[in-house]
Amino acid sequence: MQDLLFDFLSKYITLSEDEKKALIDLNIFHSFKKGTVLLKEGQRSKNGYFVLQGCIRTFYNVEGEEKTTAFYTEMEGITPLCVLSKEPSEYYISCVEDCILIVSDPDMELEIFQSFPKFETLCRVLSEELLAKHQVDFDAFKVSSPEQRYLNLLENRPDLLQRVPQYQLASFLGIKPQSLSRLRARIHKSNKV
Amino acid sequence: MQDLLFDFLSKYITLSEDEKKALIDLNIFHSFKKGTVLLKEGQRSKNGYFVLQGCIRTFYNVEGEEKTTAFYTEMEGITPLCVLSKEPSEYYISCVEDCILIVSDPDMELEIFQSFPKFETLCRVLSEELLAKHQVDFDAFKVSSPEQRYLNLLENRPDLLQRVPQYQLASFLGIKPQSLSRLRARIHKSNKV
Repeated sequence: MQDLLFDFLSKYITLSEDEKKALIDLNIFHSFKKGTVLLKEGQRSKNGYFVLQGCIRTFYNVEGEEKTTAFYTEMEGITPLCVLSKEPSEYYISCVEDCILIVSDPDMELEIFQSFPKFETLCRVLSEELLAKHQVDFDAFKVSSPEQRYLNLLENRPDLLQRVPQYQLASFLGIKPQSLSRLRARIHKSNKV
Repeated sequence: MQDLLFDFLSKYITLSEDEKKALIDLNIFHSFKKGTVLLKEGQRSKNGYFVLQGCIRTFYNVEGEEKTTAFYTEMEGITPLCVLSKEPSEYYISCVEDCILIVSDPDMELEIFQSFPKFETLCRVLSEELLAKHQVDFDAFKVSSPEQRYLNLLENRPDLLQRVPQYQLASFLGIKPQSLSRLRARIHKSNKV
C-alpha cells in the first residue's frame, strides 16, 4: 500500500528514504469497512481523507433524500470545508467500498511541513492542480446536457459505472434515477446498431 | 491598490516590510480595459490572474455559443488548468469590467518561494481553502433547482447581478436567458406581495 503512495508521489517529488520513513511513521494508513460514515452533517472534524484503495463519496441530505455529489477513488482526496472553516459540516462522507485511506489533520500536517518543507510544496502543487481540474469539471457539468455528462463519465471514469449504485450515480450526474435508466438504455441501444 | 492586497493577505500571514517590498518589486499589478481577452481557447499560457479590482469571467465556445462558467471578482483568482498541464486552453478568460489584476507565472512564484518560503505556505493555504469552497459550490449547483441557484446568488454574490450581463449570468446558473428572465420576474413579483 505504501508503494502505491510512493509511486504516486514520485510524479511530483523525489523522496529520500528518511522522508518515506517519516511518512510511514505518521501512522496515517487506516482501513474502513464499506458503509462506514466518516463524516456526518452537523459534525465538526479535523480529518482529511486520501484514498489509497476503495471509493468514498460525499452526499447531502436534502429534505430526507440523499444527494451524492462526488466520488473519490484511488489517489484522490478531500479536505472537507468544515476542517478549514471549523464550522459543522454541511455534508456526509461515507465509504462506498472497503477502503484503505490516509487520514490527516492540520496539526499533523504542520508538524511534517516543519520537518520536511518539501511536503508543503507537494501539498501546494497537488491543491493547485486539483483546484484547476475541479474548475474544469464544474465547467463541463454546466455546459453539458445530462447525456453528455454520462458520455463524459463513460470516457473519463468508466470504473465508477461498475463500482457505484445507480441512484448515487444519478444524483452525481444531476439527474433523476429514472432518467439515468432511460439514458443508459438509449445510449447502449444506439451503440449496438 | 497594494493596501487592498496586504489587507487581504493579513488574514492569512503577517508580512514584514521586506516581504511587502519583495511583492511590490515583482511588478505584478496590471491594468486591463473592459473586454480584454486574457486567454483564448487553444492558446498556451503561463499566466495566473488574481483580481484586485474588477471582474473577469471564464467562458467556453460551444458550437458558436458563449457559455460563461465562472466569475472572479475582488480577492478571487484563477490559475488556468492550461498553465499546469502545459496544454492548450479549453476556455477563454476576459475582463467583464476595467480591471486591476495580479498576473503571476510559475517561474516568478518559484523565485519568490525560494526567497520567502512563507509565500508558499500562503499559496498552499489559499489553494486548499479555494478547493474546499469550490467543492461546496459545485455540490450546491448539483443539489439545487435553477430557482434555488438564483436565490443563492442573490444571497451570496448580490453584486454580480448588477455587474454582469444577463446572458452571462444565465449560463453561469446553467439555464437559458429566457428562463432567467421568467425566474427573476416571478421571484421579484412574489417578493413584492
